[in-house]
Amino acid sequence: MRVDGKPMRTIWLEADGWSVGVIDQTQLPHHLVLKRLTSLDDAAHAIRTMVVRGAPLIGAAAAFGVCLALHADASDEALEHACETLAATRPTAVNLRWALDQMAAAVRNRPRAERVAAAYARARDIAEEDVAINAAMGRHGLALIEAAASRKNGGRVDILTHCNAGWLATVDIGTATAPIYAAHDKGIPVHVYVDETRPRNQGAALTAWELAHHGVPCTVIVDNAGGHLMQHGKVDLAIVGADRATAQGDVCNKIGTYLKALAARDNGVPFYVALPSPTIDFAISDGLAEIPIEERSPEEVTKVTGLAPDGRIETVEITPHGASAANYGFDVTPARLITALITERGVLAPNRDALAAAFPERTGKQRPSNGS
Amino acid sequence: MRVDGKPMRTIWLEADGWSVGVIDQTQLPHHLVLKRLTSLDDAAHAIRTMVVRGAPLIGAAAAFGVCLALHADASDEALEHACETLAATRPTAVNLRWALDQMAAAVRNRPRAERVAAAYARARDIAEEDVAINAAMGRHGLALIEAAASRKNGGRVDILTHCNAGWLATVDIGTATAPIYAAHDKGIPVHVYVDETRPRNQGAALTAWELAHHGVPCTVIVDNAGGHLMQHGKVDLAIVGADRATAQGDVCNKIGTYLKALAARDNGVPFYVALPSPTIDFAISDGLAEIPIEERSPEEVTKVTGLAPDGRIETVEITPHGASAANYGFDVTPARLITALITERGVLAPNRDALAAAFPERTGKQRPSNGS
Repeated sequence: MRVDGKPMRTIWLEADGWSVGVIDQTQLPHHLVLKRLTSLDDAAHAIRTMVVRGAPLIGAAAAFGVCLALHADASDEALEHACETLAATRPTAVNLRWALDQMAAAVRNRPRAERVAAAYARARDIAEEDVAINAAMGRHGLALIEAAASRKNGGRVDILTHCNAGWLATVDIGTATAPIYAAHDKGIPVHVYVDETRPRNQGAALTAWELAHHGVPCTVIVDNAGGHLMQHGKVDLAIVGADRATAQGDVCNKIGTYLKALAARDNGVPFYVALPSPTIDFAISDGLAEIPIEERSPEEVTKVTGLAPDGRIETVEITPHGASAANYGFDVTPARLITALITERGVLAPNRDALAAAFPERTGKQRPSNGS
Repeated sequence: MRVDGKPMRTIWLEADGWSVGVIDQTQLPHHLVLKRLTSLDDAAHAIRTMVVRGAPLIGAAAAFGVCLALHADASDEALEHACETLAATRPTAVNLRWALDQMAAAVRNRPRAERVAAAYARARDIAEEDVAINAAMGRHGLALIEAAASRKNGGRVDILTHCNAGWLATVDIGTATAPIYAAHDKGIPVHVYVDETRPRNQGAALTAWELAHHGVPCTVIVDNAGGHLMQHGKVDLAIVGADRATAQGDVCNKIGTYLKALAARDNGVPFYVALPSPTIDFAISDGLAEIPIEERSPEEVTKVTGLAPDGRIETVEITPHGASAANYGFDVTPARLITALITERGVLAPNRDALAAAFPERTGKQRPSNGS
């Protein structure tokens, strides 16, 4: 994507051909700080401290982390140590483990002299595959936005989104944002209502930042406001991302997604989920019953971080001292509330048959894979 | 209610018999600071700067503000000046104007020597009437919580609430909290999930504070979380307040209420609105079409205020600098999503006939009043 006109990805090889550049996302939206990673420890630290975040970006960062480790030492022991170190940074991240498995497979049986080049080649491929999937989702989702634009006779298309399923969470383009960027870049007048997405405010901090810097008009709203906007005809369609989906099309995404899907149905607003196929878990069906929901630190609820008047990034407590808080990271939107799933193989009805038909290699007679 | 065992209201006559005490709610939940108001200017400043807030409390504070003005000068000019000054503090507050009309009517035609005593008598009545309405709602709503407790065989009753319709918004007891306090004080094990209620965080700051200090167990959640809790059977009933309701039972309340009502319906959770009758506007029917929704400052969305680590109350910016934000203060929950209305005259079905039958003096052949 572009940042104030300049092309940028979330992760890249530096001009030296081996070190790795990333955006320090802990400083967003207040400061655009670039970091250069030159070692395994740099990469592990960046993932652990959420300098990079978002499942696809974490996968790519881990892949390049293996490259940096092998650049220093191409031994079997170094490879094993790198994979263990990186896997421990975010223990529940499925993309992270998948990327490390891919990297190990790509280099393990090669002579040491070839390992570094093979690692960088595979890491670049992992990054490019993410970009290709997102670009395909963008092309397919674009048709939905074009249809909305023609229903409005070329008037502004208002899109609601939740959390950050944007290019900052991926290597480039994003998932839920892919159709939006595709429409904007084609000259369709789109405007995005960005849910702030408490407790971590990824919408207010990241989605609003990336949309605005690419030039897409957007308005931040509190998570409470989307229903009111839909009641008053101010939202033409909603597009959200997904952390995990089931074989029958139930979608687990950032907490609060379900509430917006309910409001969309109550007001006849199309509700789309951008769903790269690696996110689909064909081994499970009933999202509500089968997807465990992570409970995170109560401090994410009781405290808010932002920019203080003196320019420091400050964390303030918003609840009575010692208050109890519960912090569920995700919720499940049942397939019945979803209008369609935007995948890299097309826009699909949210049901078992459509998903199986589009991804036959994932749902054959063989034992279902875990989808990652 | 009680604060750490000590009885307290939100507004009271001081021991000197004429000055007025209030809680400085701008310092909550971090500091419990009491203020003594000794003049019209003190009272006007307290309302304007939200030292006192909540429609019923604003009305009572304005009434006592007139008392303070007359205590210094009981002339017609002083009375008129007091009413004008106080009316200008919060231009859209209906209770404020009603209270000022009541005060003016109570003193205007009396000799100067009687005015001060008459004013204090009427102000005390206004405060006591609010307490009486809330106590009646508490008694009626208690039966709903008792029914839930018996369905759970005496197990904990989990109640979700939104914003602060608590005793801090009234003179005492609160509206949505009235049944909760009644149940707790009767020994029924209640626990409250408190929506933080962005953008102003009245739930996280005020409801969590008053419940905890009275001894009611509660857990703060982000506004995004209520749907997930209901999907998983963790909410037995929801009780919210109302800023305005229509003759057919549509309810305007703090932004986000509608989303929780949708989730309640989708999961079979009873959704109750505590509705003191002065809040009902019998002159309007269709809440969505007829209730204008206030748009407030975008800064309430882009900035969050809380307690900094050094003990100062600090405001931090959470969006990219210069980001656009929209800030709708309220939304409308259609009557079809409401299980019942808890009023001072009983628990009513949310429809025109039930409301008219309970409040015949408001819906007679005479021109409808504006409900305040």
